[in-house]
Amino acid sequence: MAGIYLNEDNSHYFMERADKASDIKEIRDFILQYERTNVEKMFLCASCQKTNFPTKTGSIIFEDVDYDSPLFDRLSNFSKWSMAVGDIVAKGIDIYSIWIDTLRETGISPWMSMRMNDVHNADDINSLIHSAFYKNNLDYRRAMYRDEKWEDRQLDYMIKEVRDYHFGLVLEYFEKYDFDGLELDWMRFGNHFKAGYEDEGRAVLDDFMRRTKETALKYEKIRGHRIELAARVPVKPESAFDMGMDGAGWARAGYVDHLIPSPFWHTSQADIPVERWKQLVYGTSCRIAPCIEICLRQYAFPGCKNEFQYNSIETIKGAAKSFVDRGADAVYLFNYMDRQSAPYDEAGYREIITSVGKNELMNKGIRRHVLTFNDRQPEGMPSDERLPCMLKKKKFEGFRIHTGTAVAGEARFALLSFKGREDISSTDIEVYANGRKCVFDGKKDPGHPRPVNTTFAWRMPAESVKDGYQVLEVVACDEGFVLDWLEIFIG
Amino acid sequence: MAGIYLNEDNSHYFMERADKASDIKEIRDFILQYERTNVEKMFLCASCQKTNFPTKTGSIIFEDVDYDSPLFDRLSNFSKWSMAVGDIVAKGIDIYSIWIDTLRETGISPWMSMRMNDVHNADDINSLIHSAFYKNNLDYRRAMYRDEKWEDRQLDYMIKEVRDYHFGLVLEYFEKYDFDGLELDWMRFGNHFKAGYEDEGRAVLDDFMRRTKETALKYEKIRGHRIELAARVPVKPESAFDMGMDGAGWARAGYVDHLIPSPFWHTSQADIPVERWKQLVYGTSCRIAPCIEICLRQYAFPGCKNEFQYNSIETIKGAAKSFVDRGADAVYLFNYMDRQSAPYDEAGYREIITSVGKNELMNKGIRRHVLTFNDRQPEGMPSDERLPCMLKKKKFEGFRIHTGTAVAGEARFALLSFKGREDISSTDIEVYANGRKCVFDGKKDPGHPRPVNTTFAWRMPAESVKDGYQVLEVVACDEGFVLDWLEIFIG
Repeated sequence: MAGIYLNEDNSHYFMERADKASDIKEIRDFILQYERTNVEKMFLCASCQKTNFPTKTGSIIFEDVDYDSPLFDRLSNFSKWSMAVGDIVAKGIDIYSIWIDTLRETGISPWMSMRMNDVHNADDINSLIHSAFYKNNLDYRRAMYRDEKWEDRQLDYMIKEVRDYHFGLVLEYFEKYDFDGLELDWMRFGNHFKAGYEDEGRAVLDDFMRRTKETALKYEKIRGHRIELAARVPVKPESAFDMGMDGAGWARAGYVDHLIPSPFWHTSQADIPVERWKQLVYGTSCRIAPCIEICLRQYAFPGCKNEFQYNSIETIKGAAKSFVDRGADAVYLFNYMDRQSAPYDEAGYREIITSVGKNELMNKGIRRHVLTFNDRQPEGMPSDERLPCMLKKKKFEGFRIHTGTAVAGEARFALLSFKGREDISSTDIEVYANGRKCVFDGKKDPGHPRPVNTTFAWRMPAESVKDGYQVLEVVACDEGFVLDWLEIFIG
Repeated sequence: MAGIYLNEDNSHYFMERADKASDIKEIRDFILQYERTNVEKMFLCASCQKTNFPTKTGSIIFEDVDYDSPLFDRLSNFSKWSMAVGDIVAKGIDIYSIWIDTLRETGISPWMSMRMNDVHNADDINSLIHSAFYKNNLDYRRAMYRDEKWEDRQLDYMIKEVRDYHFGLVLEYFEKYDFDGLELDWMRFGNHFKAGYEDEGRAVLDDFMRRTKETALKYEKIRGHRIELAARVPVKPESAFDMGMDGAGWARAGYVDHLIPSPFWHTSQADIPVERWKQLVYGTSCRIAPCIEICLRQYAFPGCKNEFQYNSIETIKGAAKSFVDRGADAVYLFNYMDRQSAPYDEAGYREIITSVGKNELMNKGIRRHVLTFNDRQPEGMPSDERLPCMLKKKKFEGFRIHTGTAVAGEARFALLSFKGREDISSTDIEVYANGRKCVFDGKKDPGHPRPVNTTFAWRMPAESVKDGYQVLEVVACDEGFVLDWLEIFIG
């Protein structure tokens, strides 16, 4: 049994509610929908580069926005967001304080979340989403010699001005809002240094976290209650360390009370080494709350061409059950916001926010454990994407999938798909689960999410059923099979 | 500054000294050569599957050997080994006790090392190297459904009889020999469970280590001095954990006093995350002694076709300096035995055993930091070999190499080689070090070890010089370049 930590991003409410966003009932109702769900803490994100609140340090979302420009009209989502925040500020409404109070009323712990190095739209330096600080300091970007992707345009935290600017925003969060805790979101986005300077960077972020903790302690006296800190960090402790974000070290130093091992965005990663995180923070009170992203892809965007690239309730239950069985203290949901028509309908959303983390509900019905990958690796380390995987004839190709604790009576299937194959025979492919041969069971459609081509099922023998990790091995009996999808389907 | 832990394997002395092996002066001289070197502890390995000492539990090396069979004659190395041990036993010589005493005389701490799951020659079940226990229990082998390599024929430690048999041998080591410590060598070979059962296996090995520690405590009273334990485990703590060998957990439980993160055999791995090992055993007195293997390959045997596939003093100094600068308490040398003509001559051997671990010597002259790989990964995880690497036109391909602390005045070069290329021009390839562009410097032969094709140098700019990790990025300006070798050459 674990509660949900729910992240509400900094644009969704304003884009979605648009001209209703300043309505006090709308503001309160937005929070009240989470009453009597399994949401334990809500993380209200109030800034990317720009803030949703008036700021002396940074730039509010509508700063330097020319409402009359034709550019502005074309950005309908940005327009809604910017105008909604403008309307709220003009009316003197302090929306985050209202949300914090409403969360306390409902028994949900109110948190805020600050994105530490957001570079949405960084390819377009004229984008209205960029802060004045970013646009005025283009030489602070970390990897412009390379400039292959948005992350190369993240700011370099080895530069004192970058740290000072962001610490100024941290202080504003504390000054303005009476939250139970503040999350520093180091995974939006996840690269904070020039390539090669991650070890030096680790010392710098350690100090940043230490100063943030000092600030929290100071504000505990002002607010009269405990103020905790959380950090979103990479999925694997060793990647976090090698990327300069030593979450476990921060926990041991007493700087953070919650760590959120998180993918970046390309995909959820259901295989988060919770046991090892717990081992690393042993002896502290730090809680581990692994993150489920909304996206699910077997390899990175844009190579992955699946029709539906989101988690469904079955894949969420798979990941969440595995996390909880491995010792997670909570399940963190990122990008699971209301009224998003693509990934779920209204009833689906209710099911997610009420059942995720509750063993008795997660153990019922279908669970799916899909092989994905870690979408953030240290500089100089390649992606660990396993798919698509060209199988060598008669060679065993092994994969690890964690399925949590086995539930009595469940049937387990390995589900595989191969590029361009709509039919295969029982003699084309052999599948082994934990060293035991599985039995071909023909086509089986697991529903969303699914790969482009047909999925085929192999029944895992009863003797192979065990807790925790399952090693699946795939052997192609001929050349030419490219594995494109792998999951364990339990139901 | 760190001492050397030197492993002497269980066949080398007997094969090399052959009919002189029972000569008492030869026996003592073998040890005395290490006097006044930097060897701090010597690990005398006395068993693979068979032992070099009379045993009630197992099989001595000459057991079931038919000296008259033509097969025996053909195995000249095995013949020398087996007959030398036979001769020593027949003469009533207790060679390990003599070695232990001589080591104490010379001020070197005498240790013994037991191989926990050795499967040399496992493809040939009639090989004379196999113990009776192994041959009589072929159904204890771990992965015969797959049977692709020797390791699939390792014994499954989930089987109680396997544990009991090996624990019986552990007890014999304690009963027979008065050592300062015993090493359990879990990396000869490194797979102890059926695929998928590594987490369950971890509990089983934890218990095995606990019982070994209890035995050590019992023998401390008998011997009247402290008896330490060591374990060879995989290079990365997370791989060790996921393979069921939780070295860091053993240290925290007080079961081991020394951990030896070790490659298997294909190659040395100069990038061992010593800091993270130290962090994991923080608060214990466990020392971390990363291992340098004799082999050095950029990718696995037999694909790797280099003429010379061993470390040289320059690559050893590179790895050892990196280890020590990262906090290693000692440097462990595996397969660095005397009178091996291929990897080093007599003077070269003296240099290795006297200078490795000593900063003032390692910092002098040429150091080479060659990109290799981890040759043992958990079941279901692919090899992390990066080479050979087909470069994509105009795409940055990044690599991480750890070079330890920078030494003032040193010149650094990135050395690269490309499959089939004996000439390239300055416009073919760009190399970046820590985000700074390097300058093409033409062909440069680093000496042994080296790849098949010519190596080319790029001078790393002074501004790129830093301690610790270096991120090298390689960009091919056209199609068709396959990177086959990468190193940082410092001199």
